[in-house]
Amino acid sequence: MHDFQERYQAYLSVFNGYLAEYMDNLSTKPSVLGEAMKYSLSAGGKRIRPVLALATAELLSVPSKEVLPFALALEMIHTYSLIHDDLPAMDDDDFRRGKPSNHKVFGEANAILAGDALLNTAYEICFNQCRKGDGYVRAAQILCECAGIDGMIAGQVADLSFSSGDKPLTQDDLLFIHEHKTGKLLLAPVAMVCALADDREYFKLEKFAKAFGLLFQITDDILDVVGDFEGMGKSIGKDVAEGKLTFVKLYGLEGAGARADLLAAECKAYLEGIEGEKTFFSDLVDYVRNRRN
Amino acid sequence: MHDFQERYQAYLSVFNGYLAEYMDNLSTKPSVLGEAMKYSLSAGGKRIRPVLALATAELLSVPSKEVLPFALALEMIHTYSLIHDDLPAMDDDDFRRGKPSNHKVFGEANAILAGDALLNTAYEICFNQCRKGDGYVRAAQILCECAGIDGMIAGQVADLSFSSGDKPLTQDDLLFIHEHKTGKLLLAPVAMVCALADDREYFKLEKFAKAFGLLFQITDDILDVVGDFEGMGKSIGKDVAEGKLTFVKLYGLEGAGARADLLAAECKAYLEGIEGEKTFFSDLVDYVRNRRN
Repeated sequence: MHDFQERYQAYLSVFNGYLAEYMDNLSTKPSVLGEAMKYSLSAGGKRIRPVLALATAELLSVPSKEVLPFALALEMIHTYSLIHDDLPAMDDDDFRRGKPSNHKVFGEANAILAGDALLNTAYEICFNQCRKGDGYVRAAQILCECAGIDGMIAGQVADLSFSSGDKPLTQDDLLFIHEHKTGKLLLAPVAMVCALADDREYFKLEKFAKAFGLLFQITDDILDVVGDFEGMGKSIGKDVAEGKLTFVKLYGLEGAGARADLLAAECKAYLEGIEGEKTFFSDLVDYVRNRRN
Repeated sequence: MHDFQERYQAYLSVFNGYLAEYMDNLSTKPSVLGEAMKYSLSAGGKRIRPVLALATAELLSVPSKEVLPFALALEMIHTYSLIHDDLPAMDDDDFRRGKPSNHKVFGEANAILAGDALLNTAYEICFNQCRKGDGYVRAAQILCECAGIDGMIAGQVADLSFSSGDKPLTQDDLLFIHEHKTGKLLLAPVAMVCALADDREYFKLEKFAKAFGLLFQITDDILDVVGDFEGMGKSIGKDVAEGKLTFVKLYGLEGAGARADLLAAECKAYLEGIEGEKTFFSDLVDYVRNRRN
């Protein structure tokens, strides 16, 4: 795992360097808009989506400079969704990544607009790539679909609307929510880079990415019970307190753990069928299975 | 003006037909997402942006079917901005286009997400055009820039932040707000179609569109004072009640009217220099100058 940490840090520092350069050049009038965007963009987190994009790029021999604009756009979309999710009208969270959430610092109106701005800017970045060829257009389309009404937003609406209904939630409901709300933006980095690589192995990598997304969510549900604020940087135990259906509620803590083990094994089985140097991906599965944040 | 009404209706019905077909095919899971999107999309209004796009297409001999996807995307962006603007944390408006605003019907959380969904879907539509050629990519870029952090969103943030500051607003502040908040999305239909037409007359049309956007906003400010709920379909007198700086507050009712006359004359002067059949544009200027809604 020593080598894994090094590679993760290497991908992270490539992405963070690109992000820092982008943010240095970002100035807005009024300045508060850019400040609110940067506040949440720079809050860090694991950056697992850009890391996954860069690792997939290395696996498929796509130069990282071709992938970075899309990785940045993806991280912006992820960040906007967190800002809007934290709003009082939504999850009403005061903390995110260990810092006060965006609306706590800049006010609700600015937070709504900073979220809108990040979403819009993500696609400005993508459009700027579109004249390079069909693969680039396809990568942008994939990101946009994963973020949209058949992707993440469907998951967010389902999370709200299934939870407020009269019927008790089923396992299928929960799977729908997570496959969309978290899963699609974890599929996107792999699928986008496959489009750039014009890769025929996409279907194998897609299966891996879908199982990986679910694994990520199950470990998130587990951490909502056994994690702590310091590690997670956000309020803990909220899902349970709000009576939300989670994998832990559905299967119990032990059962959810067993599901996570099963999914981790599934991820590795999908990797078997893929050519190339896959150690990082396999280590990444272990890392997510055992993560504390 | 009889001919003008007919042409306006003709453009309107082309656009509304395209929109209706789009909405017929729009189904989401959960269904409430699509319902919230359609509720605000179908609320109508003047559709001045799509009409301007179709009129520009006719002026520059671009087939309307090439323009319609971009016109739809533009109207979606305009609609999302209204949904988010009406939220309690923003302008807190209960009515829009004569109907209860989106969050009044679907709740705040769904309204935030329906807005996000319209913005995202607008760009899905644009990306689907991007493989047709560079002019299409350029049109999409223009729309995205006009909607973004140097466009409409800058105007929205400025509207919030200049108004809440300690300094009294200046004429420059007001012009900045309106050139961005309203102006950019009225420039977009003209600029997008010029990109599709690869038009060298763009700079002349751009000047027209910018003056036209300002004219539209001044008449909006005038109508906030002299209009009625029935005509406008939204709360009247709110700007005055909230002490907002408007053109009427800056110049008085008569002065604002004189400014509007001046801008209308300016619009027509810009049209002089442009080749082609421009009667509709000239009539459109009169229509906006004299509008009651």
